[in-house]
Amino acid sequence: MISLQPINESNFLQAFALEVTENQKQFVSNPIRSLAQAYVYRNQCQPFGIYNDKTMVGYVMVIYDYDIPEYDIWHMQMDRNYQNRGYGKQALQCVLDYISSKPFGSSDKVTLTCHKDNHTAYHLYASMGFVPTGNMDEDEIEMSMNV
Amino acid sequence: MISLQPINESNFLQAFALEVTENQKQFVSNPIRSLAQAYVYRNQCQPFGIYNDKTMVGYVMVIYDYDIPEYDIWHMQMDRNYQNRGYGKQALQCVLDYISSKPFGSSDKVTLTCHKDNHTAYHLYASMGFVPTGNMDEDEIEMSMNV
Repeated sequence: MISLQPINESNFLQAFALEVTENQKQFVSNPIRSLAQAYVYRNQCQPFGIYNDKTMVGYVMVIYDYDIPEYDIWHMQMDRNYQNRGYGKQALQCVLDYISSKPFGSSDKVTLTCHKDNHTAYHLYASMGFVPTGNMDEDEIEMSMNV
Repeated sequence: MISLQPINESNFLQAFALEVTENQKQFVSNPIRSLAQAYVYRNQCQPFGIYNDKTMVGYVMVIYDYDIPEYDIWHMQMDRNYQNRGYGKQALQCVLDYISSKPFGSSDKVTLTCHKDNHTAYHLYASMGFVPTGNMDEDEIEMSMNV
């Protein structure tokens, strides 16, 4: 059973220890760097550990962009030891459920980016309903959906 | 003129880019890792960029330990390009002035740790009035003073 738990004093060291594969390191910021950004954006974001029962198996951050407004999903990743088990899809559904509760403010729009060579992630996002917006941010394809 | 500026949206990327020397990397967490911890302890800490006029030349975090209570200085470092100019001593005085304002709660006690082989830092701390408490945390010498 996949669930999200907020990153806090009790579990941040587990988040620090998560690792993606060598090839995936080019595609995603590690949780330490992501949490450093979370400090700066602390009033508009929520970083989570992705759990399979009691084991942290991944990481994701939800951030609210007040300017647009929209919800953004940042730095989603599954630890290299827990990939290819369908956890990513379940976790993404948990993220969308969380965003549906509109924790920071009103918006139905959810946006994320996916490196153009990260085919696994692209197919996951597309399978959940994310559609390319046509915008690129360097090598990142912007994708969006409504919840 | 050395001053402290809180880390925020406008300057965190400069903090991410600070670098100590190869030899010093064993002694101090880099600012990215420190800011990730700042997220978790965000209600009891204040990370700063150390500035020489308008240039960020170093990093330091002040954290309040409610349990003791005391103020702790974490992860103080000067970028490798701005060392040996006396900036560390001036910055530490700024940190002590900040702590004197008791931003998180009452306590005159200030504690930090210094790796037993980091002689430069040890002498800086000792010159400012920090005295070893006799406690060690692995290879870190605990030092304390009152402000």
